[in-house]
Amino acid sequence: MLGMIWVRACSALVGFRAPTCVRSLHSFPGITVAQIDEEVAKLLELKAQLGDDGKTQFVLKTPKGTRDYNPKQMAIREKVFNTIIRCFKRHGAETIDTPVFELKETLTGKYGEDSKLIYDLKDQGGELLSLRYDLTVPFARYLAMNKITNIKRYHIAKVYRRDNPAMTRGRYREFYQCDFDIAGQYDAMIPDAECLKIVHEILNELDLGDFRIKVNDRRILDGMFAVCGVPDDKFRTICSTVDKLDKMSWEDVKKEMVNEKGLSEEAADQIGEYVSMQGGMDLAERLLQDHKMSQSKQACAGLSDIKLLFKYLQLFHVTDKVVFDLSLARGLDYYTGVIYEAVLTQASAVSAANEAQNGANAEESVSVGSVAGGGRYDGLVGMFDPKGRRVPCVGVSIGIERIFSIMEQKAEASPEKVRTTEVQIMVASAQKNLLEERLQLISELWNAGIKAEVMYKKNPKLLSQLQYCEEAGIPLVAILGEQELKDGVVKLRVVATREEVDISRADLISEIKRRTEA
Amino acid sequence: MLGMIWVRACSALVGFRAPTCVRSLHSFPGITVAQIDEEVAKLLELKAQLGDDGKTQFVLKTPKGTRDYNPKQMAIREKVFNTIIRCFKRHGAETIDTPVFELKETLTGKYGEDSKLIYDLKDQGGELLSLRYDLTVPFARYLAMNKITNIKRYHIAKVYRRDNPAMTRGRYREFYQCDFDIAGQYDAMIPDAECLKIVHEILNELDLGDFRIKVNDRRILDGMFAVCGVPDDKFRTICSTVDKLDKMSWEDVKKEMVNEKGLSEEAADQIGEYVSMQGGMDLAERLLQDHKMSQSKQACAGLSDIKLLFKYLQLFHVTDKVVFDLSLARGLDYYTGVIYEAVLTQASAVSAANEAQNGANAEESVSVGSVAGGGRYDGLVGMFDPKGRRVPCVGVSIGIERIFSIMEQKAEASPEKVRTTEVQIMVASAQKNLLEERLQLISELWNAGIKAEVMYKKNPKLLSQLQYCEEAGIPLVAILGEQELKDGVVKLRVVATREEVDISRADLISEIKRRTEA
Repeated sequence: MLGMIWVRACSALVGFRAPTCVRSLHSFPGITVAQIDEEVAKLLELKAQLGDDGKTQFVLKTPKGTRDYNPKQMAIREKVFNTIIRCFKRHGAETIDTPVFELKETLTGKYGEDSKLIYDLKDQGGELLSLRYDLTVPFARYLAMNKITNIKRYHIAKVYRRDNPAMTRGRYREFYQCDFDIAGQYDAMIPDAECLKIVHEILNELDLGDFRIKVNDRRILDGMFAVCGVPDDKFRTICSTVDKLDKMSWEDVKKEMVNEKGLSEEAADQIGEYVSMQGGMDLAERLLQDHKMSQSKQACAGLSDIKLLFKYLQLFHVTDKVVFDLSLARGLDYYTGVIYEAVLTQASAVSAANEAQNGANAEESVSVGSVAGGGRYDGLVGMFDPKGRRVPCVGVSIGIERIFSIMEQKAEASPEKVRTTEVQIMVASAQKNLLEERLQLISELWNAGIKAEVMYKKNPKLLSQLQYCEEAGIPLVAILGEQELKDGVVKLRVVATREEVDISRADLISEIKRRTEA
Repeated sequence: MLGMIWVRACSALVGFRAPTCVRSLHSFPGITVAQIDEEVAKLLELKAQLGDDGKTQFVLKTPKGTRDYNPKQMAIREKVFNTIIRCFKRHGAETIDTPVFELKETLTGKYGEDSKLIYDLKDQGGELLSLRYDLTVPFARYLAMNKITNIKRYHIAKVYRRDNPAMTRGRYREFYQCDFDIAGQYDAMIPDAECLKIVHEILNELDLGDFRIKVNDRRILDGMFAVCGVPDDKFRTICSTVDKLDKMSWEDVKKEMVNEKGLSEEAADQIGEYVSMQGGMDLAERLLQDHKMSQSKQACAGLSDIKLLFKYLQLFHVTDKVVFDLSLARGLDYYTGVIYEAVLTQASAVSAANEAQNGANAEESVSVGSVAGGGRYDGLVGMFDPKGRRVPCVGVSIGIERIFSIMEQKAEASPEKVRTTEVQIMVASAQKNLLEERLQLISELWNAGIKAEVMYKKNPKLLSQLQYCEEAGIPLVAILGEQELKDGVVKLRVVATREEVDISRADLISEIKRRTEA
C-alpha cells in the first residue's frame, strides 16, 4: 500500500528527477530488496507508458495472462468444442450455465492453498464477489440450491486463476474448462467407467496422438499412507508431495517428504515401493492380497472398485489406454474415490519441434502434460446443503487450452488453410454500375439460406473480387454482366479450376447447393 | 465506508443487543434516512444469514442480478443462438473472442455517465481491471491493437453492468450480447443496409411477432438541434432527453428540456415538430427541401444517406418493416452516422398476459421494448490508435435476453415439451443380471455415433427404464433379454406407440438412424 502511494507520488518525476524518489526510500527504513525490485519494475512500467513527450500514453493490450482469439483461433476452437460437445451429447448430457462470478463465500474453503489465486471483485457496495475458479464448485452450489439429486450435465465456460501465466504452454489466467459430471446415487463404478469412456472417445476423435489414462483411488492412497505409517494429519500434505511425481524424481519427492514434511525415512521408503507400481486389474488383485495393504479397509474398498472399474472398461474396449497407477494423486482436496488423469504419451511431432525451439528441454517435451482429469467427489454438494445431504458425483474435465495449443500448432504446420468463414459464393460483377443488381441477387441467395458475400463497393474490380475469394477460400463466384442480365443467367465460376459456366437464374440456388453442400 | 465498518462491528450483536447498535448511530450525526434504511436492510440480511442458534449460515444463491441457466433454458438458448449464428455466418462473418475483463483504462471515457455501472476487480496487485461493459469497446480495442482495417465479425458473449436488475423483464447484471459489425472504408450505406437486412432476417426467423426497425442518423439529429437553436454544448444532453421519447410523453420530454436543461421553449417546440415525423424515403426527400433543415450541411449529408439506405433496403425487400423516425436518438455517445433500433410492435399473446399478471400497465405492454439496435461509429477505433487512425465501423447488437424471455414464455405456454438432450435410444433390459450385456451394447452404439443412455443400476426395473424415456422424450428403447441374446436380436420399442419389433444386432444401428435421423 505504501509502495502504491509512493509510486503515484513519484510517477510525475520519473525520467527527470528519479534520484529524488530513490532518496525518499529512506523514509521507509523497513523496505526489503525484493520490495525495491518490485517498485523499480513498477516505475519502469510507468516509464514505458510515458511517450517521448512525457504524456501518459494508453497501453493497448489485454490483461496479463489473457488473450484475444482471432478468427483462425476461433475456427479451431469451434472445431474442438464441436467434437467434445458431440461426445457429451452422445452420452445424454444436458448442459447448464452459471454466472461468471459467485458470492465470495461460495468459493471459500473449497480450494485449500489455491484460494490465493481467486480473483475478487472490488467492493462497490453490495455483495462480495469472486470470479469462478472452476466449474465444479458452481455445479455443486447449483445442485444444492435447486435440490437436484440426479443429473448428467456438461458445462463449457471460462474460469479464472491469478496464476503465473505460461502462455506459450497453454497456461492462462482466463481459460476454458469443459466439464462432464454425473450426479446421483448409483451402483458402483458404472458412471465412473462412462467418464473414462468419454475421455477415451474425445482423445481418439481429436487425434492428438497416443495417450494413457492413469487411474487411482483416494481410498487406496489414504490406505497406503495409513499402512506405511503416515500420521493421519499428514495424509493431505504427503498426498500433495506424491502428486509431484510427474514433475520430480522419486529422490526429490522423498527428500521433500522427509526433510520438509517430517516423515520418517522408513515410511517414505514404503510409500516409494507402492507408488512405483503400475498395472491393470491384476495389480489390484495382487494388492488385495498384499499383507500390508490388505490391513486397510479403505484400501481394500478402493481396490475392489478398481477391479470393478476395469471389468466395465473391458466391456467398453478401452483398457488398452488405461493404467492403474499408484503414483497418481491429483491435487484437489474434494476427491473421495476414484481419480484419473489422461496424458499424451508422445509429443506430436509439431509440438515437440516447437518446444525445442522455445528451449524447453527434452525431459519436458516427453511429459506433454495432462489433457484431462477428474474423479469422484461425494462430499462437495453436502458442503452447500443446509442439512448436509450428500449427492455423490463423478466427473471429468477436459484440458482444453492445452488441446487448443496443440491443434493450433498442427494447423500452423499443415499446408491446408484454416477457413474462418463458410461462405459458399461471392456475388461479383464484371462491369461497372451493377451494384443494385448484385444486391438484388445476394438478397435472393441469403433468403434461400446460401452463405454469400458481396464487396461493399459501387464498382469493385473483377480481379479484386476474385482475389478476395482466393484469400478467404470462397469456392464459387456468381458473376453478373450486362449480357448475363439480358440472358437471365449468371456466370458461375469455380475459383479453384477457373471453370466458368452459365446457369439460369432459376437454377442458380440448387446449383450452388449441389456444388458446395456435398 | 463508515456504514460498512459499523455493520461489521454490530453484526455479532444482531438479534441480541440491537439497541446498542441503534444508539451508536448518534456518533454519525450526518447520517440520512436513506442511509439508515440501507443499514437496516444490511442488518436484516445479516440476520437472515444467522441460523436459529445464531451460527452464521451460508446463503445459497447466485449474485444479485445474475442467474443460472437450467437445462431447459439452455436448450432454448441454444436454439436462439443457432438461429442468430446461422444468419451471421450466412453473411460471411468471422468470429472473435476477447477476455471477460479489460484494463480499466480501456473502458475509461467510453460510456459517459454509465461508467458508474462498470464492475471493477479488486486491486490484488498488478493491473487494474474491469469487467467488459459491452462488446463494442473491446472490438475497437482489438482492431486498433492488431492494426486491422477490414473485418466483418460477430461476437456472442456476456457483458456486465451494475444496473438495477429487473429480471422478470429480462434485465440482468450479467447478460449476453450478440454483436455483428463491419469495419472498413467502404462506399456509403452498403454495409449499413446489410446490418438492417440481418436484423430483419433474425427477427423473422425467430418468429417473435411483428416488428419495426426505426432508423435515424446522428448527423440529422445534430443538424436539427443546430437549426432549432440548441447551443452546441447542449447537443448531447438534449439528445439524451429526446432518447426518452419511447418511455415519456412529448410534454414531459419538453419539460425536461426547458426546465432541467435550460433550453428555450421556442427551440423545444421546433424540435417537437421534427421528432414527431416518421416516414420513408419520401420524408428524407421532403426534409432535404425543408427551408430550415436544409441549412445544415450535416443534416443534408445524413438525409442523403437515409435516401441511399432506403434504396438499398428496397433491393433487399425489407422496407415494409423500416421507418425513418426523427425521434430515435439512442443513448451512446460514440455513434457518428446512421442509428437504428428494432422494436416488437405487438406483445406476443403470452408475454402480454404475463406482464399483466406482473402488474405492468397496459402502456408498458404495448412498447415491448427494443430487441436490436446499433449504428455507425466511425471514431471509436481511432480513440485507441496511438496515431488516431480511423477505422469506420457499423454494427448491430441483438437484445438476446429480452428474446430469451419471450421464447421461454412461449415454451412455457406451449403444450410441446422442450427436450434437453438429443438421446435417440435407451439401452434397457427386461431381466436381471444383464448389466454387462447392456454396457457392451451401448458401447457399440456410442462408437457408431448413436446418442444413447443406460441406467446406472445393476438391475433396474423395466418400468422405471421406460418411464425415464417418457420423461426425457427418448423415442426408442433397445430391450435386451435372455431370449433376445440367444437369438442375436434386440427388441426395439417405440416409446410413443409402444410398438415392439425384433431387430438383428447387425441391423440395429442403421435401424436406429433410419427411425431417428429423419
